[in-house]
Amino acid sequence: MSQVLAIAGVGLIGGSVALALRRARPDLRIVGIDRDVAGLDDAIRRGVIDEAAGVEAVRDADFLLLAVPVGQMPAVFAAVAPHLSPRTVITDAGSTKQGVIAAARAALGDAASRFVPAHPIAGREHSGVAAATAELFEGKAVIIAPQGDNPAEAVEAITALWRDCGARVVSMPADAHDRVFAAVSHLPHLLAFALVDELAARPDARQLFAFAASGFRDFTRIAGSSPEMWRDIALANQPALLAELDRFLAHAGELRNALAAGDGPAMAALMARAQTARHHWMAGELDHFRDESA
Amino acid sequence: MSQVLAIAGVGLIGGSVALALRRARPDLRIVGIDRDVAGLDDAIRRGVIDEAAGVEAVRDADFLLLAVPVGQMPAVFAAVAPHLSPRTVITDAGSTKQGVIAAARAALGDAASRFVPAHPIAGREHSGVAAATAELFEGKAVIIAPQGDNPAEAVEAITALWRDCGARVVSMPADAHDRVFAAVSHLPHLLAFALVDELAARPDARQLFAFAASGFRDFTRIAGSSPEMWRDIALANQPALLAELDRFLAHAGELRNALAAGDGPAMAALMARAQTARHHWMAGELDHFRDESA
Repeated sequence: MSQVLAIAGVGLIGGSVALALRRARPDLRIVGIDRDVAGLDDAIRRGVIDEAAGVEAVRDADFLLLAVPVGQMPAVFAAVAPHLSPRTVITDAGSTKQGVIAAARAALGDAASRFVPAHPIAGREHSGVAAATAELFEGKAVIIAPQGDNPAEAVEAITALWRDCGARVVSMPADAHDRVFAAVSHLPHLLAFALVDELAARPDARQLFAFAASGFRDFTRIAGSSPEMWRDIALANQPALLAELDRFLAHAGELRNALAAGDGPAMAALMARAQTARHHWMAGELDHFRDESA
Repeated sequence: MSQVLAIAGVGLIGGSVALALRRARPDLRIVGIDRDVAGLDDAIRRGVIDEAAGVEAVRDADFLLLAVPVGQMPAVFAAVAPHLSPRTVITDAGSTKQGVIAAARAALGDAASRFVPAHPIAGREHSGVAAATAELFEGKAVIIAPQGDNPAEAVEAITALWRDCGARVVSMPADAHDRVFAAVSHLPHLLAFALVDELAARPDARQLFAFAASGFRDFTRIAGSSPEMWRDIALANQPALLAELDRFLAHAGELRNALAAGDGPAMAALMARAQTARHHWMAGELDHFRDESA
């Protein structure tokens, strides 16, 4: 009998997993679960999923993927919990991990041990199933954050699932994951949102934006992202993000004081370190960076 | 007799002005002045300039363009001052205006009234005369910030010069210019430098940079810029930039407090305003923004 994958949330990520696995596992039966019924019809028409179903369909699933925004994870875990079969292994695609794990623990009881959290580092400008593509994860990293009580077979099954999507699977503890992404993703988003909002509120905003150019465009690209999604990510990763934001504000405060003091050498030194670091990063020369994580 | 343009600093900007004007004004004689003698030889070989000369050559110039980094403007004004002819009109290509005007006033005496400050809003990733192109200013804005004592003919001559480079010339007071560019250009540069430097100094920097992705790449692109150039711009525009940095840090502090309080509605509202503003800006819908500058 063919295996069944249930996908809760058939948007860009859920739809792309479905399309990738159609290729890699032609026998897999893919069931979509979504409160957006019209979206599910669309996903069937596009050949992304085989059928649409309610949450009770998870009882027949070998795999369950939660591909909903992190703010909706608690409600989706609660909705599927009564219907889970003991053989279902679960994964997700949320941008934070500790909050999603807590939501799973709160809603799933014993079944929470079959939840192998994951975060695919892939995306597109556009969202929704219409933007889904079988190649979305090709060559991209998917971070899994196995829990201490995950059975080895569950971790292996979820690893194989993401690998079959074309991804490179990397394992990392959930707290390390949340700290890393607070620093390199969530924090830049907050800063870009804050800058654009601050300038847009000015009486002379029109003049400011009339002369904003390509540097501003690239710096603020991520401020074009979904407010709801990023509010939820920020709240779900609040402790780590707050720590990162405070570190940044302290460092920006030092640069501010160097500027106020007219301390050219201190400013040039900071800028030169940043330029050098970014150059090495862009060149893939990670050996440039210290690797002494606790 | 053909007119003479002297260009102090034959790099990307100076070289591109030369190439653009060769097309628009084939009779113009273009003289390059630069402490980098090998660079001048290269510029001659490339057909960018007609000849290389010392600062005394400005005595025969109808036009003098200073296309050196803002940190070098005071020294270049001082070097050319003894040789200036009363008929020479002067412009520059510096990223800040009040500081350059002060440098001109300090060095040039009466001749400072023939200095019509300018800032071309154009650039490339690469610098130096090898990157110069006749099309660099095509369709781009050049801001001129005329001084109160500029003769009308001087402003007209400099406006025509930049127009002949293909640019759209916009006039703006120097203080407004410096405030606008502090907000939409200099501030984002400082923030990008500060973020990269802060992360690169961590014991676990390698892990952080290993997972930094396209959002981080675009946000920090401007942190790949020249440290010396940006130190000089920051110092030259210190009062305006300090004011902008303080406004940003205050607004980021408010977002920080909303995050600390778990205030989802406040965070979502800020993010939604930013997303909407950026959408309108990208769509060229400047009517979205208030236009009540003092």
